[in-house]
Amino acid sequence: MMQLEEIIKGIQPIDQEWITKARERTAQLVMPTRALGRLHEISERLCGIQKTLQPSIKRKAVLVMAGDHGVVNAGVSAYPQEVTGAMVQTFLAGGAGINAISRLVAAEVFVVDMGIIADLSGLDLPASDHLVTHKIASGTADFTQGAAMSSREAEQSILLGFQEATKRYQNGVEILGTGDMGIGNTTPSAAIGAVICDVGLDKMVGRGTGVDDEGLARKRDAVSRAIEVNKPAADDGLDVLAKVGGFEIGGIAGCVLAGAYHQRPVVIDGFISTAGALIANALCPTVTDYLFAGHCSEESGHRFMLDYLKLDPILDLGMRLGEGTGGALSMSIMEGAVSIFKEVLTFEEAGVADKE
Amino acid sequence: MMQLEEIIKGIQPIDQEWITKARERTAQLVMPTRALGRLHEISERLCGIQKTLQPSIKRKAVLVMAGDHGVVNAGVSAYPQEVTGAMVQTFLAGGAGINAISRLVAAEVFVVDMGIIADLSGLDLPASDHLVTHKIASGTADFTQGAAMSSREAEQSILLGFQEATKRYQNGVEILGTGDMGIGNTTPSAAIGAVICDVGLDKMVGRGTGVDDEGLARKRDAVSRAIEVNKPAADDGLDVLAKVGGFEIGGIAGCVLAGAYHQRPVVIDGFISTAGALIANALCPTVTDYLFAGHCSEESGHRFMLDYLKLDPILDLGMRLGEGTGGALSMSIMEGAVSIFKEVLTFEEAGVADKE
Repeated sequence: MMQLEEIIKGIQPIDQEWITKARERTAQLVMPTRALGRLHEISERLCGIQKTLQPSIKRKAVLVMAGDHGVVNAGVSAYPQEVTGAMVQTFLAGGAGINAISRLVAAEVFVVDMGIIADLSGLDLPASDHLVTHKIASGTADFTQGAAMSSREAEQSILLGFQEATKRYQNGVEILGTGDMGIGNTTPSAAIGAVICDVGLDKMVGRGTGVDDEGLARKRDAVSRAIEVNKPAADDGLDVLAKVGGFEIGGIAGCVLAGAYHQRPVVIDGFISTAGALIANALCPTVTDYLFAGHCSEESGHRFMLDYLKLDPILDLGMRLGEGTGGALSMSIMEGAVSIFKEVLTFEEAGVADKE
Repeated sequence: MMQLEEIIKGIQPIDQEWITKARERTAQLVMPTRALGRLHEISERLCGIQKTLQPSIKRKAVLVMAGDHGVVNAGVSAYPQEVTGAMVQTFLAGGAGINAISRLVAAEVFVVDMGIIADLSGLDLPASDHLVTHKIASGTADFTQGAAMSSREAEQSILLGFQEATKRYQNGVEILGTGDMGIGNTTPSAAIGAVICDVGLDKMVGRGTGVDDEGLARKRDAVSRAIEVNKPAADDGLDVLAKVGGFEIGGIAGCVLAGAYHQRPVVIDGFISTAGALIANALCPTVTDYLFAGHCSEESGHRFMLDYLKLDPILDLGMRLGEGTGGALSMSIMEGAVSIFKEVLTFEEAGVADKE
């Protein structure tokens, strides 16, 4: 397995020359100057990433990283912890939100058990080739009492995420979406956001799957204690991940690094995926060149994370499900951007007069 | 042909019972309560419109209404007027933005000549069955000097739009997008917006296809004179259309009325389509029950129009092309909403525990 240092060294910035060439093509399209706004930015960045004027994101996959969280004991979630394993089974049965959206955008869904409590190895799964098991541990430790995981486990989670994403890219996937499943995982995500973005807990800790006022108070208290007990170093992504993160969040960070390393686009989803991107960005800021923010979540802290990463979300539809749904749905808009770029005639080809 | 009064009388509000039933189904989906935000609202409204819990918007069409504008003489556009006819030919050749997006979302494109100057009847068109000719006149009159069209022509444009949309619905189209082409048509649209929404010209008149500061001043002046000379009655949609509108805008108003009359969804695009919706809404406010706003345009006045109609746009991507592109692109999001509604398992089906 590649080492983290080697991965980070191998990440190059996006190719500005191809972006310039792409902007020149956009300027010739038979429409007023840059009349399709963000769609042009998306297609041009894809040209820069793929080093081509014929970008393609037809072959899509979503990697849903799953993990459990010791901090659930502190009463931070509206759902019982066994829902994590039950939802993973629902993903494998094709019956969850991410399955419906992925079918629509023609993305393949892979679920990676990065460390859930449930043991699914004995199950007769209808699509077991779409479950990858890398159970680092049966859930993290309660980070209000100490580190969520060891430094070694944190690195392992990133490297396994990198490995899984790499496999998909090597199999021809042109764009990868990240997703998450893990009851309680808005709590570590908020802790990561608060530490790295230096944003107050009143803004960064939200209701997640829908906790009531008391639950929200417990969440804020848990994150506050976690930061106090663990003192994570904001500029050290591995330290933040180990102390207040989660296995699936490390896996997502690995996916983000893989996109940048292999020069392929990655679409992050909402609050948890963006926490993973924050870890990756702390390790190597260049990753954002290859990152697209699928949407802005209803979870209050998400906007602050996106601002920190200087990413402008494609959709803003009040979604807060996770699983990768917002990222996968935004791929349809990205495909629109590509279609415009590749299929619209130039003024010359169309025989239309340009501006007077 | 049906008469306008008969159409308006035939429009019924959306069925609230089906929306209630749809909300009950949403509540059972294996995800936190209404975790997909706007997607739920979209699917539930489609259930109300189609009176079913199995909504479908697979069969899609976009009607691009085209017209020319006498006010172009006042120097309100960055493009010469012959571009209208040239772009219509580009639509028919499949080479414009709306064609690229429509291919992606599997929508059929029909272009309706509601009153352009160019005569395309003799052309050897590759897809001439997709051009419908209802040339009311060769462009409107310059409305800074008097009415843009007669009251009879205004009614005719609406009825012809209604007729074309009706044909598509009768041929099995499940969702219709409106589009526009007409050099200069942000000027009548701004006039309609200013009159009906009672919003100042500084806010309602924008740069359209990209006029410079002097062009913008000429546009504001033209709209100001048009309103002063014609004194359109804000509560009389037909009067506003005749005095400061356009033939394609009347056609779009007819499409909007047709959706409501036949109880089928209509997706409006940007500034010009929404001006058409304002005319339809002035004639019959119930039309908004059946209307979806595809996106919020970069054109500054659009937000005020959408606020007036109480429509929340699905996308907000800085687009300002028209042609129906924003509406067509948003259909992919609406399909996502439908997929979620129909394909996600319930908590019970998935065997997942609901909230504690």
